[in-house]
Amino acid sequence: MNYKKLGSILGKIMILEGILMLAPLAVSLIYRESFIHVLAFAVPIGALALLGLLLQLPRPGRSSLYQKEGFALTALVWIVMTLFGAVPFVINGDIPNYVDACFEMMSGFTTTGASIITDITAVSRSTLFWRSISHWIGGMGILAFVLIFIPESDDGSSMHLLRAESPGPQVGKIVSKMKMTTRILYLIYLGMTVLEIVILMLDKPIPGYEDDKLFFSLLATFGCAGTGGFGFIPGSIELFHPFSQYVMAVFLILFGCNFSLYYLLLIGKARDVLRSEEFRSYFLIIVLAVLSVFISLVGRFEAFPQTYTTEEAFRHSLFQVASLITTAGFTTTDYHVWPMLGTMALVIVMFTGAMAGSTAGGIKLSRIVMAVKGAYVIVRKLINPRYVPVVKFEGKTLEQKTISDVFAFITLYFFIFFAAMFLLAFDPVNGQLVAIVSDAGTYDVKHGFFSNFSAVLSCISNVGPGFEAVGPYASYALYSWFSKIVLIFTMLLGRLEILPVLILFSRRTWKRV
Amino acid sequence: MNYKKLGSILGKIMILEGILMLAPLAVSLIYRESFIHVLAFAVPIGALALLGLLLQLPRPGRSSLYQKEGFALTALVWIVMTLFGAVPFVINGDIPNYVDACFEMMSGFTTTGASIITDITAVSRSTLFWRSISHWIGGMGILAFVLIFIPESDDGSSMHLLRAESPGPQVGKIVSKMKMTTRILYLIYLGMTVLEIVILMLDKPIPGYEDDKLFFSLLATFGCAGTGGFGFIPGSIELFHPFSQYVMAVFLILFGCNFSLYYLLLIGKARDVLRSEEFRSYFLIIVLAVLSVFISLVGRFEAFPQTYTTEEAFRHSLFQVASLITTAGFTTTDYHVWPMLGTMALVIVMFTGAMAGSTAGGIKLSRIVMAVKGAYVIVRKLINPRYVPVVKFEGKTLEQKTISDVFAFITLYFFIFFAAMFLLAFDPVNGQLVAIVSDAGTYDVKHGFFSNFSAVLSCISNVGPGFEAVGPYASYALYSWFSKIVLIFTMLLGRLEILPVLILFSRRTWKRV
Repeated sequence: MNYKKLGSILGKIMILEGILMLAPLAVSLIYRESFIHVLAFAVPIGALALLGLLLQLPRPGRSSLYQKEGFALTALVWIVMTLFGAVPFVINGDIPNYVDACFEMMSGFTTTGASIITDITAVSRSTLFWRSISHWIGGMGILAFVLIFIPESDDGSSMHLLRAESPGPQVGKIVSKMKMTTRILYLIYLGMTVLEIVILMLDKPIPGYEDDKLFFSLLATFGCAGTGGFGFIPGSIELFHPFSQYVMAVFLILFGCNFSLYYLLLIGKARDVLRSEEFRSYFLIIVLAVLSVFISLVGRFEAFPQTYTTEEAFRHSLFQVASLITTAGFTTTDYHVWPMLGTMALVIVMFTGAMAGSTAGGIKLSRIVMAVKGAYVIVRKLINPRYVPVVKFEGKTLEQKTISDVFAFITLYFFIFFAAMFLLAFDPVNGQLVAIVSDAGTYDVKHGFFSNFSAVLSCISNVGPGFEAVGPYASYALYSWFSKIVLIFTMLLGRLEILPVLILFSRRTWKRV
Repeated sequence: MNYKKLGSILGKIMILEGILMLAPLAVSLIYRESFIHVLAFAVPIGALALLGLLLQLPRPGRSSLYQKEGFALTALVWIVMTLFGAVPFVINGDIPNYVDACFEMMSGFTTTGASIITDITAVSRSTLFWRSISHWIGGMGILAFVLIFIPESDDGSSMHLLRAESPGPQVGKIVSKMKMTTRILYLIYLGMTVLEIVILMLDKPIPGYEDDKLFFSLLATFGCAGTGGFGFIPGSIELFHPFSQYVMAVFLILFGCNFSLYYLLLIGKARDVLRSEEFRSYFLIIVLAVLSVFISLVGRFEAFPQTYTTEEAFRHSLFQVASLITTAGFTTTDYHVWPMLGTMALVIVMFTGAMAGSTAGGIKLSRIVMAVKGAYVIVRKLINPRYVPVVKFEGKTLEQKTISDVFAFITLYFFIFFAAMFLLAFDPVNGQLVAIVSDAGTYDVKHGFFSNFSAVLSCISNVGPGFEAVGPYASYALYSWFSKIVLIFTMLLGRLEILPVLILFSRRTWKRV
């Protein structure tokens, strides 16, 4: 293990986190928050800068990183960012418990948006800002963000780091172009972010929050862009005007697209975009899911408390599908009480997630498509043993190893899923009644199987809200500290797609060769 | 497609089913049931014999079957057996609806034990007998049963058939020995069956059922041996004395073992049995699951209605784990109301199932062990790219293809799982309240997510009961005919381990070459 190099990169990232924290510090000053709120960010900024600089002191011997080091470092970076990022919440008292604060911060960086805050109105603006901007940073990847600015030689280290962090089964192999690509993708990300803020500013202000238009547009956009989805006023996006809700739904879907498609658009290859199989499957699934939810809402085959107009039913269907397939987790209404058909459509898109190479979580549609093709090959081969499979995906031939890795990923995903559910079963919260107040009325739900199932699903797919006791109008506050730690790791495993975390905690990684 | 050969084998199996139906016909005569009950079996016996003989008329041209034909035929045989096997229930009026009758019969042959019967006391003895003996036939495999008696030349056809039907990822490749092996395994199966009947006969009679000792011992043993688990008196095995419950728990665990281990025992290789990794993991999981359930019952961390003595808590823990890991589905108490820790332990063993080569369903422990090893290899390779993996399982080197197939199987298992859940979401039963009367009292449950989740889990793993609205004291009766057909195919997909069913319904299978 190349500890010096590891320390050097880790140090740079800590300095960067310190710099990023200047933003909430500025918010704190602009809104004239009390001294303790300013201090809450000033202290960790100082600590991060100091520690970060200290870690630069030893000169790295071997300059490049092995693959295992890249993977382990990536997982480590996310943990360290969380551990420091959580400190302000404890100092300013918005989240007094440190485990809770870490849960909130990991949820922020992994763009999950699962929250332990029960009264969002009691939280300071600097905290709200720091939570939401962490989505924006985590969305495209912490290391990707760093690598743009760090003057590292392109010696392969960056490739290992980006590969460990990048969502989806494949990543371009052209190392020399990677930094360039990362910069272009980040510029597209930035451009779309600015565009959404501007469009959201066009809407009427929300009654009761007339002075917060810019602030809310920023937070909503950070949540959309990173597909994070932290709420910042009661009821998530419920109070937003339909115009803003439609805008956000569209932008969510756009941020769920593979960013390289925008690059193709920019260089005039629009036809290639339309030909992309993952893109097609993405839109197909969105259409089918919106249709399922919409039918279940207007058909009223099952009783549920809300009465929607047709426009509302369509808007909520579109918004919830967009929000859950991109694993953002913003909500416009209490979808927990919806009929089973709507519920199942939402659960399934929470599993699949959106496209690889987007800011979304979940299994990713490219993996689903590849797995289906892989299964087709297995059946074809049994029908005709002499059949030589040539499986193509996005025009390229798929190797057997890639398909096998996809199957392995999905298997591991479900193993971790049920292991996490088993650990949550020890929580004393199970079986308790939780009172929910939502647009569907006031009702009690029992913290049962579906609560834990959806909590784990929401965390591993980086969605945020679940169903039942962790539904859109509930929080994760009632879980024990042990369960929260389990869910923190579930979010990290989901965001980094399992392997980097396994490698970080593998004894062999830390053995001297 | 070799239609003549296909018809010939199918015909022989129909004749065999006719012969098997003589058993419930005899039961009907012994218990002096009404004429319609005798007729209910006599008519299909006649039809099966006639059709079966007609199918023998064309002389098969090519004598051997291709792999695809073997797989498709296997799936077809199970469907045909079910379609004919369901007829008596409709004629004698015990299950007037034919879809319901097919559900019950497929549940019988696949050793699921899921039932649509709401009042078991109203059902005739001949029906009870036919349902339960179908577990015993389906447990070791319908085709395995047939192939022992059919004087086919060992031309490879039998291999394809046995391979399609045999549970677990691997099957011996020595064709010439296969028929011999199948015979030995069936003899062991028969021996253990007789042994269990004899031991159950030693128990005191059940109060109120003094004259039914032999009849109940037979039905209980058929359910244990095939790991099916159809109930035949109210409350499944609740009324049985503790002695019988312990005996059944032990026999369930024994029938969940790979039968080739008994062969090893018989030829004096006991040490090889203890060395088997799947055997070890089987006992480890049983111990852990019993412990989890037991702790959750005696610890009372969560409130639940029943009050058990320590012995009762232990007995119910052991029995439910044994019954659900072997995917039999017998129950001694209402486990649906148990705390979450017990629930999750039971859900997890319903997924894993017992050992390959047993009569149990589920993913099978050998697959779980192989998948874990495969994941370990992936991590090792990322840590050290020059690492050349040598993965062994049960002393033999595992090929990459085998591991990849295991990952593919588990992926497909979950794809089918959520597809079936989505189809069940259309059912009008969702959201309805169902009244349950059990040893935990009288209570209402809402037919919700966990109901459909556990229904699909129970059917794909061939368990029988689930939780909530399909819990141990409920039935599948309230599902619509569409949902029942979905679950019929889910059971078949689970029992034949997916691929044969996919091949049967693949257009390419039926193309003329």
